[in-house]
Amino acid sequence: MNGKLRTAVLGATGYSGLELTRILLRHPRLEKPALLRRSSDNGTSADLAEIFPALSGNGGYPLHPLSWPALKRQGVKLLFLATPHEVSRSLVPEAIAQGLRVVDLSGAWRLRDEQHRAIYNFEDSDTVRADELTEKAVYGLPELHGDRVAGAQLVANPGCYATSVILALAPLLKGDLVDRSRGIISDSKSGASGAGKEPTSKTHFVSVADNLSAYSVFNHRHTGEIVEQLALSDAEFIFTPHLLPIPRGILSTIYVQLNRQMTPLEVESCFRNFYAGKRWVRIFQTPRLPQVQFSLNTNYCDIGFCLADDGRRLILVSCIDNLLKGAAGQAVQNMNLMYGWNEEEGLV
Amino acid sequence: MNGKLRTAVLGATGYSGLELTRILLRHPRLEKPALLRRSSDNGTSADLAEIFPALSGNGGYPLHPLSWPALKRQGVKLLFLATPHEVSRSLVPEAIAQGLRVVDLSGAWRLRDEQHRAIYNFEDSDTVRADELTEKAVYGLPELHGDRVAGAQLVANPGCYATSVILALAPLLKGDLVDRSRGIISDSKSGASGAGKEPTSKTHFVSVADNLSAYSVFNHRHTGEIVEQLALSDAEFIFTPHLLPIPRGILSTIYVQLNRQMTPLEVESCFRNFYAGKRWVRIFQTPRLPQVQFSLNTNYCDIGFCLADDGRRLILVSCIDNLLKGAAGQAVQNMNLMYGWNEEEGLV
Amino acid sequence: MNGKLRTAVLGATGYSGLELTRILLRHPRLEKPALLRRSSDNGTSADLAEIFPALSGNGGYPLHPLSWPALKRQGVKLLFLATPHEVSRSLVPEAIAQGLRVVDLSGAWRLRDEQHRAIYNFEDSDTVRADELTEKAVYGLPELHGDRVAGAQLVANPGCYATSVILALAPLLKGDLVDRSRGIISDSKSGASGAGKEPTSKTHFVSVADNLSAYSVFNHRHTGEIVEQLALSDAEFIFTPHLLPIPRGILSTIYVQLNRQMTPLEVESCFRNFYAGKRWVRIFQTPRLPQVQFSLNTNYCDIGFCLADDGRRLILVSCIDNLLKGAAGQAVQNMNLMYGWNEEEGLV
Amino acid sequence: MNGKLRTAVLGATGYSGLELTRILLRHPRLEKPALLRRSSDNGTSADLAEIFPALSGNGGYPLHPLSWPALKRQGVKLLFLATPHEVSRSLVPEAIAQGLRVVDLSGAWRLRDEQHRAIYNFEDSDTVRADELTEKAVYGLPELHGDRVAGAQLVANPGCYATSVILALAPLLKGDLVDRSRGIISDSKSGASGAGKEPTSKTHFVSVADNLSAYSVFNHRHTGEIVEQLALSDAEFIFTPHLLPIPRGILSTIYVQLNRQMTPLEVESCFRNFYAGKRWVRIFQTPRLPQVQFSLNTNYCDIGFCLADDGRRLILVSCIDNLLKGAAGQAVQNMNLMYGWNEEEGLV
Repeated sequence: MNGKLRTAVLGATGYSGLELTRILLRHPRLEKPALLRRSSDNGTSADLAEIFPALSGNGGYPLHPLSWPALKRQGVKLLFLATPHEVSRSLVPEAIAQGLRVVDLSGAWRLRDEQHRAIYNFEDSDTVRADELTEKAVYGLPELHGDRVAGAQLVANPGCYATSVILALAPLLKGDLVDRSRGIISDSKSGASGAGKEPTSKTHFVSVADNLSAYSVFNHRHTGEIVEQLALSDAEFIFTPHLLPIPRGILSTIYVQLNRQMTPLEVESCFRNFYAGKRWVRIFQTPRLPQVQFSLNTNYCDIGFCLADDGRRLILVSCIDNLLKGAAGQAVQNMNLMYGWNEEEGLV
Repeated sequence: MNGKLRTAVLGATGYSGLELTRILLRHPRLEKPALLRRSSDNGTSADLAEIFPALSGNGGYPLHPLSWPALKRQGVKLLFLATPHEVSRSLVPEAIAQGLRVVDLSGAWRLRDEQHRAIYNFEDSDTVRADELTEKAVYGLPELHGDRVAGAQLVANPGCYATSVILALAPLLKGDLVDRSRGIISDSKSGASGAGKEPTSKTHFVSVADNLSAYSVFNHRHTGEIVEQLALSDAEFIFTPHLLPIPRGILSTIYVQLNRQMTPLEVESCFRNFYAGKRWVRIFQTPRLPQVQFSLNTNYCDIGFCLADDGRRLILVSCIDNLLKGAAGQAVQNMNLMYGWNEEEGLV
Repeated sequence: MNGKLRTAVLGATGYSGLELTRILLRHPRLEKPALLRRSSDNGTSADLAEIFPALSGNGGYPLHPLSWPALKRQGVKLLFLATPHEVSRSLVPEAIAQGLRVVDLSGAWRLRDEQHRAIYNFEDSDTVRADELTEKAVYGLPELHGDRVAGAQLVANPGCYATSVILALAPLLKGDLVDRSRGIISDSKSGASGAGKEPTSKTHFVSVADNLSAYSVFNHRHTGEIVEQLALSDAEFIFTPHLLPIPRGILSTIYVQLNRQMTPLEVESCFRNFYAGKRWVRIFQTPRLPQVQFSLNTNYCDIGFCLADDGRRLILVSCIDNLLKGAAGQAVQNMNLMYGWNEEEGLV
Repeated sequence: MNGKLRTAVLGATGYSGLELTRILLRHPRLEKPALLRRSSDNGTSADLAEIFPALSGNGGYPLHPLSWPALKRQGVKLLFLATPHEVSRSLVPEAIAQGLRVVDLSGAWRLRDEQHRAIYNFEDSDTVRADELTEKAVYGLPELHGDRVAGAQLVANPGCYATSVILALAPLLKGDLVDRSRGIISDSKSGASGAGKEPTSKTHFVSVADNLSAYSVFNHRHTGEIVEQLALSDAEFIFTPHLLPIPRGILSTIYVQLNRQMTPLEVESCFRNFYAGKRWVRIFQTPRLPQVQFSLNTNYCDIGFCLADDGRRLILVSCIDNLLKGAAGQAVQNMNLMYGWNEEEGLV
């Protein structure tokens, strides 16, 4: 041992899990991560490079069945889960009981409000243990909860859409600058990797290419996260996701009404002050606006805005790479905080 | 002569002009259209098939310099302009003076309000003749102004974005069902042909692909059309266009607050009643929503909606092919009305 | 009855079947086609517009279970099959026995050579009836076999790749201008609709976008068709298909060595003479070359070429829309010939 | 100074130059590179982040006018040129005279044969100094000429297509395993960034999307490089480039006839032996083939193959990221060799 941390990833075969694995493999503070598969995944290849040939050439990436004793033997301290939320609900309590720290990329532990959780149909919603873990979990948005992440045993890594929306709205809402009674709208657009790797008629190339579609209107799982994190009421916020004909990237166009007249400079200052010292948020100076391309393959959340002449109606544009700042990159950023490392380690 | 109408197209070398030419060529009521170029277009090829090889194989498509006497000799009665608005401003008065009927696809005659017109910087804004023509021009949205189009000498063919937004909002606004004080927002997305055929750094493949960007926020030319046609005030409406990585198609996601609680069935009825008998508008039954693909290569405007549980917050989704219902198809639909033909002639 | 032909389509729910249905619906010589589903397709929607919302707005498209008595009652004379080849193998003999004429878009009856057929694993390969039908079937490439198509009871509609390659090579090979000993290579590229509508990990948007891949190298089903139709030996021809990140369209780049020195003009003449009077083949004058876009949404096969300075090494470029000239359009072209109509009816 | 190398980049505003800058900025052996613009580039922004907003957020990237004394003052030792070849022809002699080492990404110094050079129309082709530099320049394909690169003062960084083709063919040709009399064909496909950043009608999104086209057939600049590096005659090699509707990536499908019967294992061994110890070449085991996606955003050249049953006809598939192994990545790999560093420094 050379003082490096030993981690494990369960779910490396999905899009987020693969990105995560790539980052962990080159992270200077880490041993080579253990790549795990559920014992029930019999159909899965035994090597990650079989699934993602882009990995090949650097030696093997064997996938081992998850086994707590084996993890202990290998000295694994931190477990990343890039699994469906049902799997996380069942495995995280075990992992915690084993003394592991956990960063869970699923939606399993993000929500406090029972009504918001209902959309996930957790079968264990009413158990004591699940309640306890939900209580314990820290919502892993480092720019908002960095301190609590540092000490967390369980980090609930935020949803991709939620990250793009919360980071754009937090400075204004925390500064009490928004007229909530007028409603806040996020019209968000995501690339197809956000829909997951499962082939369906909706993710078929011919269905997505040359197309744009709205989906889960008034009914998307990330809405609850946004509302809870921003302390909004459900009636105050509308979230409309759209499926973009691109592999990755999210752009959220967000509409708010300020509760007092402001200048563009004041708005910009609000953002710059709020995110002072935050490595992974970039504020754009009006009239420049972020585009999906600018943050692709980076861990940045880019935020820009346009203020109407009335100084009240404000449009925010927020972009992230859904697989990085929206998933794997943020998970690593959280790990960096959990172990007291520089927030950018492994991400540049 | 066999009783068929003789038409001419100026500007067939742009995206809209080409689509228009294709439709006119197979329209059963028309002679082969005369294809014109401005005499100043010396660099332009002498044949349209040189520019659009997709046309080749059916014989030549010679481009002739515009000449009023030649048009008269050939018996041309109707002139389509798919030209920049400055060109239309200068040529339409001449065409009208020659006794031609005109369908102008540019923004030259769409706006009544001087402040809205300012965005175009018309040099002739203050001349008597321009004012007179503006007055005379009929805004060519057949579903709203079909009667007036029928008798028009000059049809101002609507903007693409404007078509998608106005058709979606008209039934609710004309029925006085919207709480305008809450503001109306159209978050619209268009394929790259909407940006025109001019190669720029913004239309370069590498700039558009794998990307999404908002542009002309609070400052797009089509905003004025929408506001005027829907009798809104500028403060009541926000329009945000985005550039999609697809060649063609528009999707507008529109947010309104109803001024009384309604059921989805009531909303649907409102739309179905308003568009009863309208061949080129399709209403989607909730929870089905239009997608860009559904109306591509057709003259349809597809409209769907989602109503929040509160019966107040309403999201409309409206899709068109920007080059057809948003330009060339609508121009032909207008022609059909002008000559008393079936609205679908040449468009199916 | 108004003298119009009554047709039926089995398999309208696939990409080719949908295109076929669209064309048949507007074909001036036809009744509205009967849309059929196999009785085993219980999961299938009862209406085609449910599957392809782009069809909606023109009334319903009910899918009826296939029933020979029902087809007889309705006066159906011609049956189109856009079904998997196994289904065609089982149903076409029944249809023929019912006295129907058949255009089969599958690969079921295209191959004469038993070794070529082996790739399809027909379970009935050795039955007398299947042999008889294979004998009876006319390979429906109208430019080569138009006379025989006219009188055919069973037309085996060619494969998409095969159409693009055979039409490009036939003039030179029939004119005995190729040095076959040097080998002929077709490096072909197809859009993703060619892979069918079934969602798989290979047709997932994220797998296809921003990508290009070769597949079925030395092992593609269309190779046999090409070799048989051009009377080549298997050793003389190499076919390499690639999956393009576009929804539709095929481009084949074909390499041949001429057996005598020729000029570009001679090559062009060879093509023009061979395809004189053929409505759906366009020959490009060197140095112009076809592009996928030019023939999209048309029934054209576009052919161009480049001849090396040595007058021997020749590169052919051939483009079609895989769903039209490569499938549904060609099927309609075949129908037109079968009923003595103009080859372009319903296709312009 | 901390023992790090000081470099400069001229041409950081193009696609390759930007990638290069990104790599140099994070290269552990380097000072922050000096970013230069030609003094004639008055229209150019003064900061690279203005042109590529994706760079912003990390401080400024000022572009300084090229000045030899300034470079000397700053201690710059190595100059990268990502400039048009005419610019390189004029500037490299000056840089060499200043004692700088140079990696030139343009085609200015890649060709020995005067006839091959003719395609570039170098105005200085006949000067003594240009001849001398051409002689001096090392063709910077590290896998073939690593030793000579190490000591080079001027490295001619290879063309993108050329890299993909030469690396795929070198093992077989150097092993004298190819029947050259049968001809070698490379059917190559490249993403649109290969066409450069200049907006033209050919690089317009609407021209490239949903399309594929062959271009420069029998007439592409990279042909000479390939022929020279592989010691082929012009008659033995055909190169056909195609423009893919993707931003970046190259796939070359290469057809050769072996001069003796081989097994797949023998072919694979030939490649594995040839590239033993080469960090940036990955050999795929048949039947696996590289795809464009696998090497995107990496410096790998991926090579796979399919051998026909006859053991003679061989198809090679070779993929690279045109901006990395095809340009900027390879330039850095060359720098690493020039300074005795590990070949992968800055590239993982």
